[in-house]
Amino acid sequence: MRRIGQKAVLAAAMAMGLAGCATAQEAPAAPPTPVEAVDPFIGTAGKGHTFPGAVAPFGMVQLSPDTDHRFFRQSYDWAAGYRYDDPTILGFSHTHFSGTGHSDLGDVLLTPISGEVKWDPGQADQPGSGYRSRYNKASEVAEPGYYAVSLTDSGVRAELTAGTRVGLHRYSFPRSAPARLLLDFRSSIYDYPGKVLWSRIRLHPDGTVTGFRETRGWAPGRQLYFAMRFSRPVVGYELRNREEDVPYNGFRQPGRDTTDRAQVQGRALEAAFDFGPIVGPLLVKVAVSSVDEAGAIANLESEGAGFDFDRTRAATRAAWQDALSVVEIEAPEDMRTSLYTALYHSLIAPSVHSDADGRWRGPDQQVHRSDFTVHSTFSLWDTFRAQHPLLTLVAPPERNADMVNSLLAAQRVSPYGILPVWSFHGQETWTMIGYHAVPVIADAYLKGVPGIDGAAALDAMVASATYRPYGGLGDYMDLGYVPIDREPEAASKTVEYAYDDWTIARMAERLGRGEVQALFDRRAGNWRNTFDPETRFVRARLADGSFREPFDPTAINYGSDYTEGNAWQYSWFVPHDPAGLIAAMGGDAATVEKLDAMFEFDNTGLDYSHAEDIAGLIGQYIHGNEPSHHAAYMYAFAGAPWRTQGRLKQIVDSQYRAAPDGLSGNDDVGQMSAWLMFTAMGFYPVAPGSSQYVLGRPFADRIALNLHNGRRFTVTAEGLSDENLYVRSVTLNGQPLTRSWIGHEEIMAGGTLHFVMGAEPNTTWGAPAGARPYSMSAHAMFGR
Amino acid sequence: MRRIGQKAVLAAAMAMGLAGCATAQEAPAAPPTPVEAVDPFIGTAGKGHTFPGAVAPFGMVQLSPDTDHRFFRQSYDWAAGYRYDDPTILGFSHTHFSGTGHSDLGDVLLTPISGEVKWDPGQADQPGSGYRSRYNKASEVAEPGYYAVSLTDSGVRAELTAGTRVGLHRYSFPRSAPARLLLDFRSSIYDYPGKVLWSRIRLHPDGTVTGFRETRGWAPGRQLYFAMRFSRPVVGYELRNREEDVPYNGFRQPGRDTTDRAQVQGRALEAAFDFGPIVGPLLVKVAVSSVDEAGAIANLESEGAGFDFDRTRAATRAAWQDALSVVEIEAPEDMRTSLYTALYHSLIAPSVHSDADGRWRGPDQQVHRSDFTVHSTFSLWDTFRAQHPLLTLVAPPERNADMVNSLLAAQRVSPYGILPVWSFHGQETWTMIGYHAVPVIADAYLKGVPGIDGAAALDAMVASATYRPYGGLGDYMDLGYVPIDREPEAASKTVEYAYDDWTIARMAERLGRGEVQALFDRRAGNWRNTFDPETRFVRARLADGSFREPFDPTAINYGSDYTEGNAWQYSWFVPHDPAGLIAAMGGDAATVEKLDAMFEFDNTGLDYSHAEDIAGLIGQYIHGNEPSHHAAYMYAFAGAPWRTQGRLKQIVDSQYRAAPDGLSGNDDVGQMSAWLMFTAMGFYPVAPGSSQYVLGRPFADRIALNLHNGRRFTVTAEGLSDENLYVRSVTLNGQPLTRSWIGHEEIMAGGTLHFVMGAEPNTTWGAPAGARPYSMSAHAMFGR
Repeated sequence: MRRIGQKAVLAAAMAMGLAGCATAQEAPAAPPTPVEAVDPFIGTAGKGHTFPGAVAPFGMVQLSPDTDHRFFRQSYDWAAGYRYDDPTILGFSHTHFSGTGHSDLGDVLLTPISGEVKWDPGQADQPGSGYRSRYNKASEVAEPGYYAVSLTDSGVRAELTAGTRVGLHRYSFPRSAPARLLLDFRSSIYDYPGKVLWSRIRLHPDGTVTGFRETRGWAPGRQLYFAMRFSRPVVGYELRNREEDVPYNGFRQPGRDTTDRAQVQGRALEAAFDFGPIVGPLLVKVAVSSVDEAGAIANLESEGAGFDFDRTRAATRAAWQDALSVVEIEAPEDMRTSLYTALYHSLIAPSVHSDADGRWRGPDQQVHRSDFTVHSTFSLWDTFRAQHPLLTLVAPPERNADMVNSLLAAQRVSPYGILPVWSFHGQETWTMIGYHAVPVIADAYLKGVPGIDGAAALDAMVASATYRPYGGLGDYMDLGYVPIDREPEAASKTVEYAYDDWTIARMAERLGRGEVQALFDRRAGNWRNTFDPETRFVRARLADGSFREPFDPTAINYGSDYTEGNAWQYSWFVPHDPAGLIAAMGGDAATVEKLDAMFEFDNTGLDYSHAEDIAGLIGQYIHGNEPSHHAAYMYAFAGAPWRTQGRLKQIVDSQYRAAPDGLSGNDDVGQMSAWLMFTAMGFYPVAPGSSQYVLGRPFADRIALNLHNGRRFTVTAEGLSDENLYVRSVTLNGQPLTRSWIGHEEIMAGGTLHFVMGAEPNTTWGAPAGARPYSMSAHAMFGR
Repeated sequence: MRRIGQKAVLAAAMAMGLAGCATAQEAPAAPPTPVEAVDPFIGTAGKGHTFPGAVAPFGMVQLSPDTDHRFFRQSYDWAAGYRYDDPTILGFSHTHFSGTGHSDLGDVLLTPISGEVKWDPGQADQPGSGYRSRYNKASEVAEPGYYAVSLTDSGVRAELTAGTRVGLHRYSFPRSAPARLLLDFRSSIYDYPGKVLWSRIRLHPDGTVTGFRETRGWAPGRQLYFAMRFSRPVVGYELRNREEDVPYNGFRQPGRDTTDRAQVQGRALEAAFDFGPIVGPLLVKVAVSSVDEAGAIANLESEGAGFDFDRTRAATRAAWQDALSVVEIEAPEDMRTSLYTALYHSLIAPSVHSDADGRWRGPDQQVHRSDFTVHSTFSLWDTFRAQHPLLTLVAPPERNADMVNSLLAAQRVSPYGILPVWSFHGQETWTMIGYHAVPVIADAYLKGVPGIDGAAALDAMVASATYRPYGGLGDYMDLGYVPIDREPEAASKTVEYAYDDWTIARMAERLGRGEVQALFDRRAGNWRNTFDPETRFVRARLADGSFREPFDPTAINYGSDYTEGNAWQYSWFVPHDPAGLIAAMGGDAATVEKLDAMFEFDNTGLDYSHAEDIAGLIGQYIHGNEPSHHAAYMYAFAGAPWRTQGRLKQIVDSQYRAAPDGLSGNDDVGQMSAWLMFTAMGFYPVAPGSSQYVLGRPFADRIALNLHNGRRFTVTAEGLSDENLYVRSVTLNGQPLTRSWIGHEEIMAGGTLHFVMGAEPNTTWGAPAGARPYSMSAHAMFGR
């Protein structure tokens, strides 16, 4: 069943599906399969920044329509190249981020053209002014691994599918018109003049088109190679360099006529291919590579020869069905759609980065070869929180091992000897803060992901945590905090470093490396050095030890004391020592009171429109950005899990909808989605690196995890409804569970976690000190 | 003995050398060895465009001082980076062309600094305004494989040597001053804004520095990698990006501080390294690669570990001694210096291009691997004439085979499927005209260079000669000439294509490929289609068959009817059918008259200063550029070899001197020098691809070729003097030689060619029709 992505249309489609079942003797309709339940349009309007196009699970190619490639400072809303409400489509490009707040990519933009070739995109509000086309919104179909749309200007039906390393286009042209294809190699997401440093397009004698471009975008100096083949012979072609070449003094260059040659080089290249009038569709197969053109050709050939669009589509659909079926969800239709789409969005990246032959380009820009599948696109500041912990539960162990080993491989060849910060296509962008590859590795290793060399991993983690030039780390190591007069966003950095350090201590503890453990357990306490006991806020300190004045806990500015946030959000970022934080806050009651103050803050008069990532506000709680994501669970540490439950209901209701504008903030490569998946299951990894998940409350009647160890862990919710928003009681495998947390080993052992829901809170459940997360004897946390 | 490159100083040094021999009981001083006889300063002033620095025979690294990197249209005179009369030195860079008329390279410019680091070169006329330094002219030493100079601003004695793939610097700093080294990675020869597309410098933990840059210079999109190591630890370093980076909207980039990181990327990079005050020299070892940084590191390690400057210097000196000793020269001092320097300049390029591991970057910009040593820097329009034929005689057969196989390998991976036109570092520049790789291959194959697959070579030659989009070839194939209304420089292209085609026919004949032979023998006659029987000039024709009017045989303009020349020079370019040309000219007398008219043309009122390559004029004969190079030998075909002899004396006397400004035009990667070497031996390859050399007259008392087949071929000149400029008689192995040519097989068989010289011409020797070159029965030419 094709899903069309608008709630109303979805309902209509559902009705049609039921109508189609009428012959089945009025048996109750089976719910949509997991693949059918996904709506890739969720997040493509509003602030979600997701893309609707075709991608395989963790696929290297993300083949998706682009409605605009905006220039520089206007680019934020077009980070995925597509906005649901845009009236025209530029074409279809092969690389996209899912949900980022900054962007790049949009490589190898192809547009089918049925008449005269227009070489520039033209204006969206002037039909026919360029190669961009209007399209029929009702014709748009998006499913996992498949996208289709009818372009009204050219009369072309465009269909897209993707394997892991290939994208396939199927274009059905109007009869008798010449079938043509334009490649605009100037174009990219986050476009600006000078972004393309150098590029090349070449038509080989066998009809293969290859190319290369190096861009200085979000990643400086990113190299991208592609290979492309057509199902029909090229009967004419034109390669253009749209930029006047530098004239050389005194020399004729007889071969530099770029219009009749099989190769062009330059900074503003385009190519048009003519297939003549054709009957039946034109298929186009494209692969990309970070390595070289030979790598792209090998990738092109790695998933079968020929042009069997339907076979690739079916294979990728089956891969998605396998990946999504790890989680069985019973929930009302909208919630089920939201959850399967959230799971889908959690399984798009980190993306496969190495070529079919194992070669990949590293942060040193050199080519390396590995015997595992190297992944990239690590949005670690976001994804260490819930997306990677979710993958540890739902993705195959080999995939998780590949990701960790990809981080370690990147560290080995890093020019700085450190783990990735925010990297894609192998390249470091230095975006956001912290060394959050560290908790990702620690969490995976401590949770038993096989195939990780723990000792080598610990060395890499320590190297990252002691690289003095990075983000004030030298001062952090000397002073115990990052001083704001020497390094921006010092308060956020200090608390995030302290948490990362705690995960290093846990790895060291497991590995019996006492000195490392002691050092990093000490550093884990550094959050105290930036906590102001007077205001009870995390605050930035100067090198002389004083807190920076003036202090406004509601101020949000880039490069200020905090990273995309303020004191309200960052004062809760001590996920590894909530007991210490609660004591510093003045005890349980003061903590609950402060959390409530955050959620209920009156924002009248505040304007955060200058800070693009600040979205999804509930008072000073900001669900659209990551620093808040664990905050609602902090009540549980203060003995008030019923307050967590209420807040979760408030957040889920207000921040997620099964609609294109249904995400309140950037999906951030699956983190927003992974938060919802965990929360819906009734537990959340507040401190990855810990073995404990904090219990919240479920949002589905039943969710079963078909774990990769062959066991099944099921969460059931009895009496769940909008009114019954509180947890009355919990059992684990039939035995009462009086604590507000569950251990990773308990999940992996399989069993059933049963919540009984009710309209009134149970204020005693989970309230005693011994029932709270992290409160048990040391062995309850990894390595303790 | 160190040579200082000025005639007067040379003489003084010679006198000192003799003085030093006084103890040897007044025995006559042995002449300088071949290596000692070379003066690398010849050609570094005037129009020669040679460089004085350190290079091994055909070495990948050309490590040489740069006195200026001029901007764009001012760059012509600084094509080799160095001008003898410049007052300051910028530093020492690792890649240089020898004698080109257009330029690029000057990669990895290093400058030793003994105090405060200045980051810009400053002005030559303002001492201290930048990092460039004045130098003591008398301190400058240049020998094959070695260069030294004393920099007066920094007080540093700088010495350079080079192996095949490494450059070694030895810097002796003044005591107590900090020893520092600046790398200006922005800088290059033929500099202009935007030339560096992207670059990277990285300091590895082990102290190795690597880097990359991609430039769009003469070669578009050239990639260069380097690796560098120091003999002393770096105690401080600074990596700078001199260009403001593009600000990104909304994202902090905490790691982008470029001053304290181990890697910088960008378009305007510099690095400074501090070694502190040191006693004893700092040694710096640098290797380059077209492949990647790992390739550069492997090249760095390929010629021995450590920093033994003197060992590398001695090894390269020995390699030069071997290469130069193939030719034994007895001649007056100045002529001997000119000749050994000419031989030296003939053995610098084509340069080794593949890495030590066999990998290389091709014209498709992809990395390939070969099991032979791939060479590049093919200035084919120049070097097909005499430089490659000279290498066939004096370089090892394996070296010649490597060069031919490099051309064939380039064709195999060419985006256009054609042989190189003018390529360096593997990249095609499309400079000049013709497909002159064809005669290079044909000449080598027909002369028996082993290790060439003739059938594959012929296929590659035919592919190049039938690639319709190139230089009017489509029209040439259809019309029998290149029409000037569709393609510039049509007259020159037509005659050069016709000659190249003749060499294809000879290859085909040898290989028994009758149809190919017939086709290209027919095309070889196409010169007639652009010869005007009325004016008896080669002229450009329109597509309608008419000659273009107005016609001025003295006009020289870029992109006009001719290539860097006019009708006077180009009307002689039928080297493969001089008999046909002479007939078209109206017979022997008319030909001699027209040749005389060219040499004796009164140029009053003509100004060719706009055409940079037009230098070395004798009337309308232009020795400083290649189209004239065979012209003096054309008299011999008209039965007047004594006129050839006279003209050669006139040319050698006026166009060559053993002085920095001693070359009348660009050395053109050895072609000007190879002309002198052949001419001095008394014979010249007028039509490479033929087995015959035309006899001129010798310019040395004795020259012996120690052939690589173990035989020796000696040319002796009896009674040679300025007055005795004519050949009276010739014997070969003691038998009278009455013809004015000698066969390649006769040379390779070894023996003695003896000229008896006199003041009066012998107008009967070589005059009869049967005594002229190409006049004997078919077997006298290859394959006939």
